[in-house]
Amino acid sequence: MSRKILPVILSGGTGTRLWPVSREGMAKQLLPIVGDETLLQMTLRRVAGGDFGDPMVIGAHPVRFTIRDQVEAVAPKARVVIEPARRDTMAAVALAAGIAAADDPDTVLAVMPSDHLIREGEAFRAAIRAAAEAVAGAGVAVIGVTPTEPATGYGYIKPGAAATGAARKVTRFVEKPDAERAHRLIFDGCLWNAGIFAFRAGWLLDALAAHEPEAVASVRASVAAMKPDLGMLIPGKDFEAIRAISFDHAFMEKTDQAVVVPAGFTWSDVGDWNAVWTTSPQDDAGNAIRGDGMAQDASGNLIHSENRLVCALGVENLAIIETTDAILVTPRDKAQDVKGLVGALKAAGRPEAVEHLRNHRPWGWYQTMDLGERFRVKRIVVKPGAKLSLQKHHHRSEHWVVVRGTAEVTTGTNTRILHENESVYIPIGEVHRLANPGKIPVEIIEVQTGTYLEEDDIERIEDEFGRT
Amino acid sequence: MSRKILPVILSGGTGTRLWPVSREGMAKQLLPIVGDETLLQMTLRRVAGGDFGDPMVIGAHPVRFTIRDQVEAVAPKARVVIEPARRDTMAAVALAAGIAAADDPDTVLAVMPSDHLIREGEAFRAAIRAAAEAVAGAGVAVIGVTPTEPATGYGYIKPGAAATGAARKVTRFVEKPDAERAHRLIFDGCLWNAGIFAFRAGWLLDALAAHEPEAVASVRASVAAMKPDLGMLIPGKDFEAIRAISFDHAFMEKTDQAVVVPAGFTWSDVGDWNAVWTTSPQDDAGNAIRGDGMAQDASGNLIHSENRLVCALGVENLAIIETTDAILVTPRDKAQDVKGLVGALKAAGRPEAVEHLRNHRPWGWYQTMDLGERFRVKRIVVKPGAKLSLQKHHHRSEHWVVVRGTAEVTTGTNTRILHENESVYIPIGEVHRLANPGKIPVEIIEVQTGTYLEEDDIERIEDEFGRT
Repeated sequence: MSRKILPVILSGGTGTRLWPVSREGMAKQLLPIVGDETLLQMTLRRVAGGDFGDPMVIGAHPVRFTIRDQVEAVAPKARVVIEPARRDTMAAVALAAGIAAADDPDTVLAVMPSDHLIREGEAFRAAIRAAAEAVAGAGVAVIGVTPTEPATGYGYIKPGAAATGAARKVTRFVEKPDAERAHRLIFDGCLWNAGIFAFRAGWLLDALAAHEPEAVASVRASVAAMKPDLGMLIPGKDFEAIRAISFDHAFMEKTDQAVVVPAGFTWSDVGDWNAVWTTSPQDDAGNAIRGDGMAQDASGNLIHSENRLVCALGVENLAIIETTDAILVTPRDKAQDVKGLVGALKAAGRPEAVEHLRNHRPWGWYQTMDLGERFRVKRIVVKPGAKLSLQKHHHRSEHWVVVRGTAEVTTGTNTRILHENESVYIPIGEVHRLANPGKIPVEIIEVQTGTYLEEDDIERIEDEFGRT
Repeated sequence: MSRKILPVILSGGTGTRLWPVSREGMAKQLLPIVGDETLLQMTLRRVAGGDFGDPMVIGAHPVRFTIRDQVEAVAPKARVVIEPARRDTMAAVALAAGIAAADDPDTVLAVMPSDHLIREGEAFRAAIRAAAEAVAGAGVAVIGVTPTEPATGYGYIKPGAAATGAARKVTRFVEKPDAERAHRLIFDGCLWNAGIFAFRAGWLLDALAAHEPEAVASVRASVAAMKPDLGMLIPGKDFEAIRAISFDHAFMEKTDQAVVVPAGFTWSDVGDWNAVWTTSPQDDAGNAIRGDGMAQDASGNLIHSENRLVCALGVENLAIIETTDAILVTPRDKAQDVKGLVGALKAAGRPEAVEHLRNHRPWGWYQTMDLGERFRVKRIVVKPGAKLSLQKHHHRSEHWVVVRGTAEVTTGTNTRILHENESVYIPIGEVHRLANPGKIPVEIIEVQTGTYLEEDDIERIEDEFGRT
C-alpha cells in the first residue's frame, strides 16, 4: 500500500463498571488503570508510525480538554474531533469516514475503541495491516478475537469462506448470547467482535448511505461546517440529528461485504475489576497490587490504591479499590455488579457515583483538600500560558498562596506577578483573575471563607473558553 | 456503707488489635469505637454519682493531654494521674491504692479497665456495690463474667465456697487456657476475669507488701512526691523502679483472700473488630455500619468509615475499616491476626502502624491536609485560652489564614489580633507564636513552603508545656 492507514480511536464512552476509579465524569480510557499512561494513550502508542498516519481521536464534549491534553502528550500531531453530542458508534464511525473522505476518499481507516488492552503491539499492527489490505478496494473488515471463555457480554462473529489473505467472509453476527449458546458458538469456531474495523472512507459512506441515508447526509453537513477550537475540531450542529445506534447494529449486521481477520494477539476489554486483575502483574499468591497496598495471608486479590495504605489480611479473590472519596470492596467474580451499585448510588444522589473530586478544566484542575463549616481549601493547578475567567463571588473571600511557579493575578483594576511563597487576598465581590504567564505549571493553595462555598457562586465577566 | 466507692479507671494500655483506628499513639479507650463518646468516657459515665465518689483515672504519659481533655469533658471533678512510665497493672493498681490511702486507708476502690464495653450500667453498679460490700473489711473481690464461648484469650476464675452476699471464695485462677480446657472450665462453672477488682486501700497495700515489698515502698515514695501539673497529677520518679507485671500475676494468683462476685451484666472487651461487630447495631442482613458505609447484596460485615464512602458489594463477614491514612479489609474471624499485621507494618517502618495523622498536642491538634513537593497545608485547631510555643523554623515560611475564631499572633516583637478571614505571613527564621485568647476554638489553615517541611524543623524559645 502506498497510502498510510488512518487510525481512528473512539473515545466517547462513559465508564461505570470500573467505579470508583472510572466515573461518568471521567471514563476508564482517560485513566491510568493498568499502566502509567491512560488506556487512550496506550492505544495511541499502539498505532504510532510505520504504516500508520497521524491518528484521529473522536471524543465527547464534557471531557474534551482532558482528551486534548492526553492526546497532545503522546501524539501531538493527532487530530482531536469532539462530538457536539453523544450519539453512539455509528455516528462516530461515519464522522471519521466523512472527515477522511473530505481529504481523500481512498484513505483506509482502522477504527478502534480507546479503552481496550492489547499488549502485543506488533501482532496487533499486523492484524490491522491484513484488515486494511482486505478492504483496500471495497468492504469492511472486523478483527476477530479467539474466545477464551464462553462470555455472554460480547458479540460473536461466524467466519465463512476464505477471502483476501487471512480474511474470511463473515457468515453472521451474534450479539451477547446466553452461556449455552456461547459454548456452541465457540465450538463452531466463532470469534469475538472486538469493535476494531477497517474500511475505505468513500466506500463506507456510500455503503452506509444505503441503510442510513439521513445519517450520512448529516455527517457530510457537519463535516462541511467543522471548525477548529482550542486545538480541537468541532463538527457542525447537524451531527446532533443523527440517531444514536451502534455501528454493529446499524451496519455490520446488515452488510454482505464484511470479512473477519483473526487476531494474533491477546485482548482484554478491561471491562470490570476482574479483567483488570487478569491483565495485571501478580505476586506468587496471585495478588495484583497497584499503588500502596499490602497483602498478608491473602491470595488472588486486586488492590488498587490511589492515596493511602490499603491492607488486605486473610482475604481471597477480592477487588479492593481505593480512591480519594470512595472505596469499593467486592469479590472479583461479582465485579459485573458494580454497574448496579453505581446506579443505586446515583439514585441516592451521591456525587461520588458520577463525579471525581479532582475537577479538570480547560486551564488545568482543582481539588478540595479540606472542608470545614465555613471554609474550604483547594489546590489549584494552572497550565503554562493558561488563564481562568475574570470572575467574582458573592458569598466568599479567597486567600491565595502560590506554592509553585509564577502567577499573574488581577484584583480589581490591578494586575501583578506573584512568585512562589507570595499571597494575595480577594475580598467578597472583588473582580479577579488568575493566569499563568510562565513555562511551568502554577500551583496555588486557595483558602475560601464564607457561609456559602459552592461552585455555582461564580459570576464570569470574561472568559477565553466561552463560559460567560 | 457510709463512704463512697472510689472508681479507679486504668487507661494506660496501648491498642493494636483495633488497627488502623486504634494505634500505639492513641489506644482504643481514647477513641469513639462503639459510640459517640470514647470507651474511656463511657466508662466514666458508668460510675458517675450514686454510691460512687469522684473517679481517679490512671493514664500514660504520651497521651496525657488527650486523657485530661476527655476526662474533663465528662467528669470535671475526676483526678487524672499520669504514670511517669508504663509499668503494667500491678504498679497502676498499687498507685491508686497509695493515693487513696494517703487520704483515707479505709476507702474502698473499684478498679476497672477503660477499654471494655458494658451497656447495662445499673447491673454493673450493683455488682460493684456487692464487691465493695464483700471487701469492706478485708480481701479483694473480682467481678466474674459468665462465659459465652470457650474463649482462649481470657483468664478464668473457679468459684468455691460461699462468702459475703453473692460473693464466693476464689478457688483458683486459670490464665488463657487452650480450647479444650476452656470447655471444661465452663462446664465446671468457671467465670471470666474481666479485670474489675474491689478492695480497701490500706488492706491492699499491706497485703501486696507481703509479696512485693519494694513495689509498695516505691509507690509510697512516688505518692509522697506527687505534684500537680497542668490539671494532672504526676507521681514521683520512684514509680519507675517498680517492675512491670500484671496485678493478676503479682497478687491475685497468690492471695488466699480473693472472692468473686458474679456479673449480672453482659460484657465485651472490644478486643478486636469481630467484638466491635458483635456489640454494634446491625441491619437485617447483619451488617454493622458506622459512618458513611453502604452494603449491597452483602451480609455480616462491619463497615467503619471515618472519612469517605465505603461500599461493600456482594461480600460476607468482612471487617472493612477506613481511616484517613490507612484501610484494612479482613474477614471478621481473622480479626485476631491484625496484631501480627501491625507488627509487620512496624517492621517495615510504616508510620501508619503507630501514629495517627491527626496530632494531638496540649494546646489542641493539627493535621496535614495536603502535601506537595515543596509545600504542606495543615489545619490547626487551638483550644480557648491555649498558646503554642514561641518558636521559629530554619527551612520554611508559613502563611496562616484564620478560618474560625480569634487568634493572637506574635511575629518578631509585634503581637496583634487576627479575626476570621484575616491572614499573616511568617518568613523563614522569624520568631512567632500562635495563641487563642477567645472563648471558642481557633482554626487556622497553615500553608508551609520550603524545601524541608518536617516537624523537627522547630526551635522553641519559650513554652508553657516545658518543651523548650
